[in-house]
Amino acid sequence: MNQKNIKVLKSNGEMVDFMPDKLKSALMRSGADAKEAESIVNTVISSIGERTKTGKIYKIAYNLLKQKSKYVAGRFRLKQAVYDLGPSGYPFEKYVSKLLEYQGYKVKVNIIENGACVKHELDVVAENNEERLMIECKFHRDKGHKNDVKIPLYIHSRFLDIKASWEKSGDSKLNYFGMIVTNTRFSEDATEYGKCTGMRLVSWDYPHGNSLKDWIDRADLHPITSMNSLTKLQRQSLLDSGVVLCKEIVENHDVLLKLGLRLQKRDEVIKEAEVLSGS
Amino acid sequence: MNQKNIKVLKSNGEMVDFMPDKLKSALMRSGADAKEAESIVNTVISSIGERTKTGKIYKIAYNLLKQKSKYVAGRFRLKQAVYDLGPSGYPFEKYVSKLLEYQGYKVKVNIIENGACVKHELDVVAENNEERLMIECKFHRDKGHKNDVKIPLYIHSRFLDIKASWEKSGDSKLNYFGMIVTNTRFSEDATEYGKCTGMRLVSWDYPHGNSLKDWIDRADLHPITSMNSLTKLQRQSLLDSGVVLCKEIVENHDVLLKLGLRLQKRDEVIKEAEVLSGS
Repeated sequence: MNQKNIKVLKSNGEMVDFMPDKLKSALMRSGADAKEAESIVNTVISSIGERTKTGKIYKIAYNLLKQKSKYVAGRFRLKQAVYDLGPSGYPFEKYVSKLLEYQGYKVKVNIIENGACVKHELDVVAENNEERLMIECKFHRDKGHKNDVKIPLYIHSRFLDIKASWEKSGDSKLNYFGMIVTNTRFSEDATEYGKCTGMRLVSWDYPHGNSLKDWIDRADLHPITSMNSLTKLQRQSLLDSGVVLCKEIVENHDVLLKLGLRLQKRDEVIKEAEVLSGS
Repeated sequence: MNQKNIKVLKSNGEMVDFMPDKLKSALMRSGADAKEAESIVNTVISSIGERTKTGKIYKIAYNLLKQKSKYVAGRFRLKQAVYDLGPSGYPFEKYVSKLLEYQGYKVKVNIIENGACVKHELDVVAENNEERLMIECKFHRDKGHKNDVKIPLYIHSRFLDIKASWEKSGDSKLNYFGMIVTNTRFSEDATEYGKCTGMRLVSWDYPHGNSLKDWIDRADLHPITSMNSLTKLQRQSLLDSGVVLCKEIVENHDVLLKLGLRLQKRDEVIKEAEVLSGS
């Protein structure tokens, strides 16, 4: 592959070397074969310059990929799709809870629970046979946003207060953990504080091998915001009615009723939902 | 005294009964005698109506008091003077540290200290023979601002991290406490969380008998923003050069040099500073 040395601009303002291999493997993870991916990367290289934004690069690649298959492109746009769950944080919370259910947890969303000192509004509480997790979801629309150390600091105190109350109720042999899941990133000291206190911090690509991206890859649970066959308004309308997964469309076509689609369009949407949810 | 039943509007939007006795005692704390105070309160009552803002009431009373003595009025305006330490929070931190010095603590301001997990920027660390305090100052310009429970939650985690590091260094028999000092207020659950965890929360009028107002009353350390003989710009210029107390003017007249005052004006300023700092 043509290894041109180009500095590109990340969404947080950082200048980094453009890595053709990274783009290639992202394209292949999205379903392109090696030859297709390489051809797209080469076209991208010839069309970008110094300081091109990585977002723009991925957009170009996405458009090229889309020409081959809109379903493949839907997967590729996953990170953007997670951003598109906003502006409110609620669909993201619901999406995270679905990913945890896939991992075998029983999940409760948006509950008010007494701590030892005060009441707390908890985004997600997830439990399996071994552990119970108190999870705070931090959704941000600004792609450059870093969750600073204040977030794990206050969530840790909240967790300790909740844990003390869970321990008082006493009948459980579960281990308790605090967790923060974000669609953006954590600052370095936030990550450090998480490691040090045993709190689990999950961001788009942290920790390696068990990041939000990995959760989504393993579960193959694509949010409806991945779908190209729906307009932005139609997606928002589904989110507003509590539908967050492509899979929910596959399992119950009736969730599409309120969109008033023509039969042919409806079938196209269902077909895309099926492909994206691996049905 | 004419006990008219008037509902007035607090800065946080709450409607409360107007309390003539409270205004009277505030005026007397500021140095007015009983007769003066009562006469002012009666004039105030005749000039306000339903839903008058408490801020406005105090302004009217202040203007009446000012007609009697601008030094007395300076004391009366103390709460406003503390707000006027802004917009940045730094003069407030310095003011809080001076109040703590008066209480017998040795004080360090704005230091970076290693916690057991991560580094923290600490506003004030105060120590006497018995205890060491980690103090976070929360200055707000918006009078209706309530510090919500997230503030003591994250400060508590920060305190535990710092405490663990202090305990590791080991040679001390001090007790360690976390403290938050604000010029506004705390929400109810913030206060509750503070009590429950043993963190000391100090706001303008909390806790009763040991509030920021009480600290200032006992120390008689008035900020330069109390002074009527200085313009807003002149006060800001002094704050920018690190002068926060009237007392600092009394102890070193040279701090006024940069204001370029005429001799007569300079003497007027020094005289007011002397009265306000009880010299």
